[in-house]
Amino acid sequence: MTPGQRELRRARAYLSRVVEPPAQAISELIDEVGAVRAARLVAAGQVPHRVAAETSARRGDDRAEADLSAIAALGGRLVVPEDAEWPAAALSCFTTPSALADERWRPPVALWVRGHRLDELGERAVAVVGARAATGYGEHVAAEFGYGLAESGVAVVSGAAFGIDGAAHRGALAAEGYTVAVQACGLDRAYPAGHQGLLDRIAASGAVVSEYPPGARPARHRFLVRNRLIAALTAGTVVVEAGVRSGARCTASAATALGRVVMAVPGPVTSALSVGCHLLLREEQAVLVTRVEEVVEAVGRIGDDLAPALSTPHRPTDGLSPALRAVYEALPARACRYPEQLVHDSGLPLHEVRSALPLLELRGLVKCGVSGWYRIVADTGRGGA
Amino acid sequence: MTPGQRELRRARAYLSRVVEPPAQAISELIDEVGAVRAARLVAAGQVPHRVAAETSARRGDDRAEADLSAIAALGGRLVVPEDAEWPAAALSCFTTPSALADERWRPPVALWVRGHRLDELGERAVAVVGARAATGYGEHVAAEFGYGLAESGVAVVSGAAFGIDGAAHRGALAAEGYTVAVQACGLDRAYPAGHQGLLDRIAASGAVVSEYPPGARPARHRFLVRNRLIAALTAGTVVVEAGVRSGARCTASAATALGRVVMAVPGPVTSALSVGCHLLLREEQAVLVTRVEEVVEAVGRIGDDLAPALSTPHRPTDGLSPALRAVYEALPARACRYPEQLVHDSGLPLHEVRSALPLLELRGLVKCGVSGWYRIVADTGRGGA
Repeated sequence: MTPGQRELRRARAYLSRVVEPPAQAISELIDEVGAVRAARLVAAGQVPHRVAAETSARRGDDRAEADLSAIAALGGRLVVPEDAEWPAAALSCFTTPSALADERWRPPVALWVRGHRLDELGERAVAVVGARAATGYGEHVAAEFGYGLAESGVAVVSGAAFGIDGAAHRGALAAEGYTVAVQACGLDRAYPAGHQGLLDRIAASGAVVSEYPPGARPARHRFLVRNRLIAALTAGTVVVEAGVRSGARCTASAATALGRVVMAVPGPVTSALSVGCHLLLREEQAVLVTRVEEVVEAVGRIGDDLAPALSTPHRPTDGLSPALRAVYEALPARACRYPEQLVHDSGLPLHEVRSALPLLELRGLVKCGVSGWYRIVADTGRGGA
Repeated sequence: MTPGQRELRRARAYLSRVVEPPAQAISELIDEVGAVRAARLVAAGQVPHRVAAETSARRGDDRAEADLSAIAALGGRLVVPEDAEWPAAALSCFTTPSALADERWRPPVALWVRGHRLDELGERAVAVVGARAATGYGEHVAAEFGYGLAESGVAVVSGAAFGIDGAAHRGALAAEGYTVAVQACGLDRAYPAGHQGLLDRIAASGAVVSEYPPGARPARHRFLVRNRLIAALTAGTVVVEAGVRSGARCTASAATALGRVVMAVPGPVTSALSVGCHLLLREEQAVLVTRVEEVVEAVGRIGDDLAPALSTPHRPTDGLSPALRAVYEALPARACRYPEQLVHDSGLPLHEVRSALPLLELRGLVKCGVSGWYRIVADTGRGGA
């Protein structure tokens, strides 16, 4: 690392602790003068009023060296926009005109990372998110989706929470895929604490990411801010289970605002944990997905990645004209009939019955024996509802 | 009954046995010359070729008097379009230009009925249909919908099959509502036979209906024809459970063609019996419904019958500005802090912290004691997913 690169990383580390994301004015200042000079101006208090409002509270708190040492001690690093592994394509969603018009959608100043390179995310990463108090059904579906997406070479991004998030990560890990946990606190602490082991496994084969420096605690508003990052890093967000009011729905609305596909998994209408998903679908804020293939199709390039159609059971009478069908139906399942005997039940004139029977024979449905015509395939169902 | 009315009923009873619905040419002939004269022409074989194709097979089969006696013996009657109780408004869907363009959408010649007057159906009848091999979940939802709709004064129409149909009828009966079973065979036989008791109960408090004369057997194509009648008699069709290929989806497509609302109930994506519903939703052929109120809203008059919004749990921090929220979050759950101590964690300048605290106090969220400010409501959740 050159001294210049070190200086840059130091500056971003300092700013990452000073501002509370999403921070609008500091982003603009960095764009204008660069991160190194921005950090110097902030530290000296020589900034315009708008930047001061975002930085004055903590500008004296320069712990950049300590924070960089702390992340290094965790086996991690600070990734800055100037790095090759910075997920620039994904985070370009923050610079669209609609994102720039809303102060909630500012990009992170830097990302604290444990694990593999962030550019392994690829173009088709998918967020799988949902309720912490998930049901067995929800965790099953999340794990299946995590597994199936990873197996399809799609990175699985989530928030490492209990319930859906954890199940999605575990599914991806089981398929030995690349999975990313985005945290709402410093990486020196695991949140939730019970997922310390899971986070270590994610860091070992994927990445654990946060825009908060070591030591930052997981305050509620940071989860909302974190959710925008989950949406930004992915091509689409799947909400597996969500209550009527949930952070997963907030991630979904961030995803929509950032131009991402939002998907929702339906569930039993008797389940309070599917109410949020059903609301997203009823309000047309999400598309309904039931299978991994449908998720891949939704985030895929147009024309590629089409989900294979479900195979439908085939019946021998498929595609028959109404007249052929009527004659076939008029034949009893286990008896023979002459054409004259089929006129009444089919409701067709004799000449139509006579011309229908050989056509049914060509289709392998009936045969003519010494006692008349009979069905070859005993058709069991009745075709009600 | 006048001799003229008796003659009319006799003519429709005769035609009802002669034609196999849906019959296009006979409908046109009746429209042209009236049912009585149409019956005479058919019996004499003096009809155009198109009508002959629909009637020649059974035109010698005049059992009108016997059929009328048979339905009377069952405590039923033949209802004809000239009767006051004929569901004329509902069946007018067969005379729209789009219906007239498709030979599948011909109205019935007459309806064989056991039970109450058909005009009790009202304007907002709803069909609740679905798989015969339903799951416990599906039957539960069908029964709840049947009950809730009946309780809301909405007639519940279905096909009396095992599974979803039966559960919907039973739910409506439990609420002492008006429910209609549409059969695909003569009313002298119960189909399915195991639902004889259910059909009797439906006839006692609602109606059992068929366009097939006594003795007609339930051939497969008659179920498809029957399904169009279920759709026609109702303002909307709810598919509760359906396999990937099912008659319920066929009812749904008939409903769409006849200008009716199609609704689908989601279910677990792991259930083969919800695949048909999810396909209808993914293909945008149905709207997603989870509650009776949403069904009533979907079939209701615009502006009336809006489903009440789901109540959402309220949090004390709802509606706080980002600054107020940051200060509130910076206060620990069970300790006191002076404004100076909140600057760092909130990331805000001291003057903003100082102005935020009294605003939070006005909202009843914090109070100022001798050792500083403290939270009044211990906020338990963490607000993750």
